[in-house]
Amino acid sequence: MDYKEHIAIVQDWPKEGVQFKDITPLMDNGPAFKSAVDEIVEYAKQLEIDIVVGPEARGFIVGCPVSYALEIGFAPVRKEGKLPRETIKVDYGLEYGKDVLTIHKDAIKPGQRVLIVDDLLATGGTIEATIDLVEQLGGEVAGCAFLIELTYLNGREKLKNNDVLTLMQY
Amino acid sequence: MDYKEHIAIVQDWPKEGVQFKDITPLMDNGPAFKSAVDEIVEYAKQLEIDIVVGPEARGFIVGCPVSYALEIGFAPVRKEGKLPRETIKVDYGLEYGKDVLTIHKDAIKPGQRVLIVDDLLATGGTIEATIDLVEQLGGEVAGCAFLIELTYLNGREKLKNNDVLTLMQY
Repeated sequence: MDYKEHIAIVQDWPKEGVQFKDITPLMDNGPAFKSAVDEIVEYAKQLEIDIVVGPEARGFIVGCPVSYALEIGFAPVRKEGKLPRETIKVDYGLEYGKDVLTIHKDAIKPGQRVLIVDDLLATGGTIEATIDLVEQLGGEVAGCAFLIELTYLNGREKLKNNDVLTLMQY
Repeated sequence: MDYKEHIAIVQDWPKEGVQFKDITPLMDNGPAFKSAVDEIVEYAKQLEIDIVVGPEARGFIVGCPVSYALEIGFAPVRKEGKLPRETIKVDYGLEYGKDVLTIHKDAIKPGQRVLIVDDLLATGGTIEATIDLVEQLGGEVAGCAFLIELTYLNGREKLKNNDVLTLMQY
C-alpha cells in the first residue's frame, strides 16, 4: 500500500521552514491505518516481544493497536507530571526544544523484550530517551517501529545497534 | 472480567482529596486490555458507526485499538496548537481547570455516525466539548464509551440523550 498518499504535508508548521508530515489522514482511513498497524504487528511477531512502549501522544495512536493485536501490554512514556505513580525520568533534546520524559517504575519487568513504537523518526531524540528509560528498568529493546522516517535528520544513528522498521521515508 | 483489579487508586493526585483512577496497570496486562477494548468494539458494532473520535491522550489509548479492530478511521481531538491543519475549536471546563479542544475541519464528514471514546467519564466536560466538535462538523454521535465512570460526578447528565457504555463504575 502507498501510505504516502494518506500523509498531508503541512508547510511551515510548527515553525517556518518545517514541512510537517501529518498522519491524521492516514488514521482517518480505516483500511490504510489497519494495514500500517498490521505491518508493525508482523514485524513485532518476528521479534517475539513481551510489551509495547510508546511516547505520548502519537506513539499511543500507533502503539496501542499493535499491543491490542498481539494481546500484550502497552506502557506509556509521558511528559513529566502526567503519570500518577512512581516514575523514572530522562532529560532529552527533541526537534523543537528540550523536555523531560517519564515512565512508571513498574511498567517493564527486567528481561522483557520491548518494541518501541512512534509515528515519526526525526532526529531520534525522543526515541533515544525512550530506549534509555526502557534499559534503566532492565528491559531489552528488541526493535523500534515508526510510520515515517525523515532520513535527512539521521535519527537512525542515535538508535545505534537497535533494529528499526519504518513504513515511509522522506 | 473484573477490570477493577487492574486499576491503581492513587491518593491525592493530581491534587489533594482526589483519588485518581490509574488505567496503566490495565494497559500493562495484555488480556485485560484486549478484553476491555473488545467490549467497546462489540458495543460499536451494534451502533453501526463510521468513525471513532477520542480526546488526547488517554482517548487515543482506548479509541485507536477500537478503530483498528473495526477497520474504520480514528479522528483525534487535541489541545489547541497540536493539530497542524485547519481546525474548529471549543472552550470547555474540565475537572481541574479550563482549556480549549480542537479537531481538524475535515476529520468527520457530514452524516457520519461517530463513537466517542475516552478512558474516564468524570464531570463530562471533555466529552460535552467533544460532542460539540463532532456536531459542528455535521457528525451524528451514535454513542460514547469509557473504561471508567465516576458516578458521583454525574457526568452522564451532560451527555443528555446520548447512549453511554462504561465498563467500571466508582
